[in-house]
Amino acid sequence: MPYRAPVSELRFVLDHVVGFDRVAATETFAEATPETVDAILTEAGRMCEEVLAPLNRQGDLHPARLENGVVRTSPGFGDGFRAIAEGGWLGMSADPEYGGMGLPIALTMAVNEMMGSACLSLQLNPLMTQGQIEALEAHASDEIRELYIPKLVSGEWCGTMNLTEPQAGSDVGALKSKAVPNGDGSYAVTGQKIYISWGDNDFSENVCHLVLARLPDGVEGTKGISLFMVPKRIPNEDGSLGRANDLKVVSLEHKLGLHGSPTAVMQYDGATGWLIGEPHKGMAAMFTMMNNARLGVGVQGLSVAEAAMQHAIGYALDRKQGRTPKGDGSILDHADVRRMVLSMKADTFAVRALAMDCAVALDMAKATGDAGWRARGAFLTPIAKAFGTDIGIRVAGEGIQVHGGMGFVEETGAAQYLRDVRVTAIYEGTNGIQAMDLVGRKLMDGGAAAFALLDELAEIDHAGLKAAVADLRMLTEWMLEQDMQDRFAGAVAYLNAFARVLGAAYHLRAAGADPDRAGLARFAGGRMLPEALAEMAKARTGAEELYAVSTETIAA
Amino acid sequence: MPYRAPVSELRFVLDHVVGFDRVAATETFAEATPETVDAILTEAGRMCEEVLAPLNRQGDLHPARLENGVVRTSPGFGDGFRAIAEGGWLGMSADPEYGGMGLPIALTMAVNEMMGSACLSLQLNPLMTQGQIEALEAHASDEIRELYIPKLVSGEWCGTMNLTEPQAGSDVGALKSKAVPNGDGSYAVTGQKIYISWGDNDFSENVCHLVLARLPDGVEGTKGISLFMVPKRIPNEDGSLGRANDLKVVSLEHKLGLHGSPTAVMQYDGATGWLIGEPHKGMAAMFTMMNNARLGVGVQGLSVAEAAMQHAIGYALDRKQGRTPKGDGSILDHADVRRMVLSMKADTFAVRALAMDCAVALDMAKATGDAGWRARGAFLTPIAKAFGTDIGIRVAGEGIQVHGGMGFVEETGAAQYLRDVRVTAIYEGTNGIQAMDLVGRKLMDGGAAAFALLDELAEIDHAGLKAAVADLRMLTEWMLEQDMQDRFAGAVAYLNAFARVLGAAYHLRAAGADPDRAGLARFAGGRMLPEALAEMAKARTGAEELYAVSTETIAA
Repeated sequence: MPYRAPVSELRFVLDHVVGFDRVAATETFAEATPETVDAILTEAGRMCEEVLAPLNRQGDLHPARLENGVVRTSPGFGDGFRAIAEGGWLGMSADPEYGGMGLPIALTMAVNEMMGSACLSLQLNPLMTQGQIEALEAHASDEIRELYIPKLVSGEWCGTMNLTEPQAGSDVGALKSKAVPNGDGSYAVTGQKIYISWGDNDFSENVCHLVLARLPDGVEGTKGISLFMVPKRIPNEDGSLGRANDLKVVSLEHKLGLHGSPTAVMQYDGATGWLIGEPHKGMAAMFTMMNNARLGVGVQGLSVAEAAMQHAIGYALDRKQGRTPKGDGSILDHADVRRMVLSMKADTFAVRALAMDCAVALDMAKATGDAGWRARGAFLTPIAKAFGTDIGIRVAGEGIQVHGGMGFVEETGAAQYLRDVRVTAIYEGTNGIQAMDLVGRKLMDGGAAAFALLDELAEIDHAGLKAAVADLRMLTEWMLEQDMQDRFAGAVAYLNAFARVLGAAYHLRAAGADPDRAGLARFAGGRMLPEALAEMAKARTGAEELYAVSTETIAA
Repeated sequence: MPYRAPVSELRFVLDHVVGFDRVAATETFAEATPETVDAILTEAGRMCEEVLAPLNRQGDLHPARLENGVVRTSPGFGDGFRAIAEGGWLGMSADPEYGGMGLPIALTMAVNEMMGSACLSLQLNPLMTQGQIEALEAHASDEIRELYIPKLVSGEWCGTMNLTEPQAGSDVGALKSKAVPNGDGSYAVTGQKIYISWGDNDFSENVCHLVLARLPDGVEGTKGISLFMVPKRIPNEDGSLGRANDLKVVSLEHKLGLHGSPTAVMQYDGATGWLIGEPHKGMAAMFTMMNNARLGVGVQGLSVAEAAMQHAIGYALDRKQGRTPKGDGSILDHADVRRMVLSMKADTFAVRALAMDCAVALDMAKATGDAGWRARGAFLTPIAKAFGTDIGIRVAGEGIQVHGGMGFVEETGAAQYLRDVRVTAIYEGTNGIQAMDLVGRKLMDGGAAAFALLDELAEIDHAGLKAAVADLRMLTEWMLEQDMQDRFAGAVAYLNAFARVLGAAYHLRAAGADPDRAGLARFAGGRMLPEALAEMAKARTGAEELYAVSTETIAA
């Protein structure tokens, strides 16, 4: 079954679950009228169905490869990228001053979702480029912004982010790349970076690398890191391209999935770069890029969940096997297959609502400057990233299971979803890092953001949800009393519990708006709330228990 | 880190968790003395470490392929198979009358576990051959047994099982293959079979196919199915090989994993076969083969869990990243990494204990003929299959996560575990089918086997476990009152709940025998018991809820 863009479902979530009307009512996003939203979702959806979806298997079968130092992308990916660029989908949320549309992040995420369902490995490119645009808008000089952003918005150039080095992954502060002033305002950047998604391609004129490196007077750790723009080809002031910069793709990784996305080892040998933001404040600048990228990666999980679900439902509706309760129906009539499919459906809905809820908060923060909205967006981001990608993996796994033996055969396509989505739980900060961010930084407000959210959830009239919300409030209070190690020990479980309570709440809101959704809401609540309670129990165990088993015992 | 056979851990589980001494005390298995067990585990373990483990990646990189109708196996697989055969590991539990060792299934499963950890795709071959030996011992004529079993035990010939056809997967009764009497006692078998694991190879002289087909007077459905032995080359009475039979490998599947195991589409064109067992009783005969194969597949999940866990621990001990609570230790000192590793360790232990517990019951049933032991083995088999493979998948996924970005890079090897193990939740009856078997056939005794097991668990002195056992008893009583559809709706959750309660119980037994294991037991109980409660809540939801969401809504 070919991918069908879930335009009306996205519309329903925006309108009836996450209160997108509040965004559209702001002056900043006044252009996001219902008609505009419809037009955007419909047009982007059509492109995803017709242009991008046919590329998905091509990318898997014909991975990007490195030939004599040049990256050759998968068949059709150049055309796909051009369609994305021409649709304006790269710069949807970019500042109109630089050619963007200035639309809400919620709409960008909706379009990203559809692009990711259609072809995740290609969609990763726009996601990186969008993040770069945001970082430049927030931190770059006027000169850099004027030079780079219009090219990134138009898709003439693409953007990447370069953080990781072999010895510096989750611990970015351990990076060794260096930047030395050239004396003319530019810097010479030297170092090796790994896991650079879309580190190069053969369809954009230029590739713009945002690179973290240390200035000569940069102290050790994260406080001595600065951010640099290091383009593949050095642009002239008019935007035309000059000489090739002193950087190269050393190799591409051979990966479990996302074969269409070239993951590069990049070597910078005194490459010319320009400082973005203040010296030694590179981490802060990079976080601007990473925060929305984290939501964007959560949406990638959603993308795969939706696509895998559609794929599995298509198969289940076609496949007949054995006597079903209603006669010789499809396998969808078997209780356990139906359970799996409803589980996929319930989880996909919950993740979509969560991602859009987070995006609405980010949009409201931008439009109103309100600290409460900002805190809401910051609180929901790690949950959306980790839960979105975990559910992407879970739903892809269920999709394989629905297919039975066919699920293990690559030609079916079900397995590719699992292979592709698996990395989303790892990149842009592993899901463990997200959970640590949630119980650490995101509770540094004394729980204000968490409690404000729980207050809203407590208003929903449902006994099971109310009880779970009350438990979650107590758990949050408990967390605030623990030292950081005890919080970290229960961090993933706390995040999971919050996500499941939110999921049940979104389903109840949906059922309130549309009685036809009451059945799925009941099913979802009957699963998510018990799971939330189990996660809450796990969240309270504390660190002592983890270290009671000695390293020697583990290594034995 | 290379694979290390967990010989002492297997010994501990046999001796202190599942009461293997009871098996060794029977006359049937009197030879399974502690010294013999030690010698077997040590010798098999060494072969797995030295001979089989190096083949694992070879099989992945160089899949079995079909060349001009001939299957070419992966590099080194022939040598690996010969090492298995020469060690006597194919016929460990086979009747000594036919060259077997007559040892307990528990020991066969222990050796199978180690072979599967070392190289799952090759281990699948012995697993199939072992199942065929058992089916022949139970159902074949003396003539067939004498001709085939010694050759299968020696590894000169291999065995396969042929059930599935494109329209007949979980619904075996829909198969269309036919068998027509030739008039000389043999039959002409015609039909196409799919998903035939190790359907052919280039290292055994012969491949013996057990094929389900319908006699001319066979009724529709499972009651009209008979079982036939259809060898690739037709043996003479003295065991020498005559002409090639009228069968061929049509194609091999391109799969997510298990690349070293050729999964064949087999075509039988009037191939000569011999009836095994009674006409029309083929399903019963095949179930003999399948039941132990189901436990064997559960053990495959265990195999991968153990291997993925060792691999992840090796990485975590080496990798340094960021400040840890105890200074700059390895990432294993980070709370969340430690949590993942302990989770892998706790789950792997639980699955090993479950598989061995099941095997001990099967051995006791064989040695004593006791109906209670037989029921125990039958009850635990679907749990061991489904939970073992689910945990194999879960642990392989956690192993990827522990590796961070490296986990997504194929060269690391972490991803292969996930790719290889994924099918184990599907073949030999999907895990959904296992759960239906549990709440259907395995509760047809009015819950006697379940309650007997719960009675034993209730004797363990632990408040949380006692409460969970009591809940599980009530849930079992509830299940017995439901019609089959309501049972099926909660079948997977019921199986999961039972498995987690058993897992917690095994950990407590281990802690009772060895105080050093108390830490892991506490960790395991703190996770497994809350999960069991959540699964019990899900198990009670009933079928109505599943069908409250219409097929039209799902398909929309």
